[in-house]
Amino acid sequence: MLPSENKYLTNVSFDTVIFGFTGEELKILILEYQNSGLFALPGGYIRRDENLLDAAKKGVMKRTGLKKIQLEQFHTFGKLNRSDPESSKTIAKGLGYEMPNDHWVLDRFVTIGYYALIDYNQVRPTPNKFSDSINWYSINNLPPLMMDHEEIVQKALEAIRNDLGTKLFGTNLLPEKFTMKELRKVYETILNKKLRRTTFQRKMLSMDILTRHEKLYTGAANKAPYLYSFNKKKANKT
Amino acid sequence: MLPSENKYLTNVSFDTVIFGFTGEELKILILEYQNSGLFALPGGYIRRDENLLDAAKKGVMKRTGLKKIQLEQFHTFGKLNRSDPESSKTIAKGLGYEMPNDHWVLDRFVTIGYYALIDYNQVRPTPNKFSDSINWYSINNLPPLMMDHEEIVQKALEAIRNDLGTKLFGTNLLPEKFTMKELRKVYETILNKKLRRTTFQRKMLSMDILTRHEKLYTGAANKAPYLYSFNKKKANKT
Repeated sequence: MLPSENKYLTNVSFDTVIFGFTGEELKILILEYQNSGLFALPGGYIRRDENLLDAAKKGVMKRTGLKKIQLEQFHTFGKLNRSDPESSKTIAKGLGYEMPNDHWVLDRFVTIGYYALIDYNQVRPTPNKFSDSINWYSINNLPPLMMDHEEIVQKALEAIRNDLGTKLFGTNLLPEKFTMKELRKVYETILNKKLRRTTFQRKMLSMDILTRHEKLYTGAANKAPYLYSFNKKKANKT
Repeated sequence: MLPSENKYLTNVSFDTVIFGFTGEELKILILEYQNSGLFALPGGYIRRDENLLDAAKKGVMKRTGLKKIQLEQFHTFGKLNRSDPESSKTIAKGLGYEMPNDHWVLDRFVTIGYYALIDYNQVRPTPNKFSDSINWYSINNLPPLMMDHEEIVQKALEAIRNDLGTKLFGTNLLPEKFTMKELRKVYETILNKKLRRTTFQRKMLSMDILTRHEKLYTGAANKAPYLYSFNKKKANKT
């Protein structure tokens, strides 16, 4: 069934950019709509009886299988011509519906963008009834995205670059305990540039947000690196 | 006349927090609606034929008399109970209109927040036909604001604190040329704390965003401080 107007707010939607880190690459989740060849960010509408943030969380949790998620709002997109009624019609058609020309989802939408940084390994992307598939794509190798979703991804990347060092702590991009090298790799991937090992380590330690744990013994005991975790109490103050 | 539904997007609006710096205090512009005793941030609706950002700019320019304005989007507010139909009815009544219960402006609204940092001395606040007055109020002494406007102000303050050192340059908070002391006063007022003169000066100069000009001669020639301006080319790269 097509979504009914009296359940949802009109002219306003949300879209999410869900980042996962493979250890090597930054990827995001992309939906492919059934029988339409259209790729999109996971998004949705806001029910009249729910908070904007809850609507976005529910949408993400449903599609990732995660029980808990932290979303950061990064930008709201409101350009005059960002909506694309033809794509919406194509999606409806792929699902077997004929969408009337005056249907509310064909109207103009202002969309609120959220990002999430999640544990790549803990997620089982779950297609919903509208989508063929939902998959991880490297941010350097995305399929052509519908509407202004490419612009939304770029703006989300800018946002996580700006938020490195503050909001990034306490997220699930890394396992609970990690080495300095793994942390540096996250920074390098997000910033898309190499960082000097010694400078990075000094900077991170000077921020006073890491707790040092035991060494990670791998056999080559001489070179065993320390494990760290985020000191969430301190990190949240930054 | 009440605003007509087919001209505007429904369920979505904008609100603006317009900061000015008196040299001593940070103030914002607050509207008082006619015959209602209600105080609010300047805000409005988005015409179906205009970009979100243009709608917000137009709203601010009309009320400040400024010909040019730089707005920064900082957060979108979408809590379930943020709208307050009773206030909207009171406002309409104060203007001499009886608002029908099913009028679209009484519905739930998600609002996009923008801030602007403008030159306090160049602005002639202009009341519009709905408002009694529009005036500068110190952020430490605001009248009780309607709806969630107090929360919007607090979030805007957080945003300008975070943006200090990046987006703040090139704004109109200061005259084109200013002394280090005047610049420090802006920082101290926004951060709401005293900063050490020497540390502040060192930090600012190390950021390489200031151009040094002639000294400001005031008569007490021995102590004449240098004048600075923002090097916009460099500042925009930060």
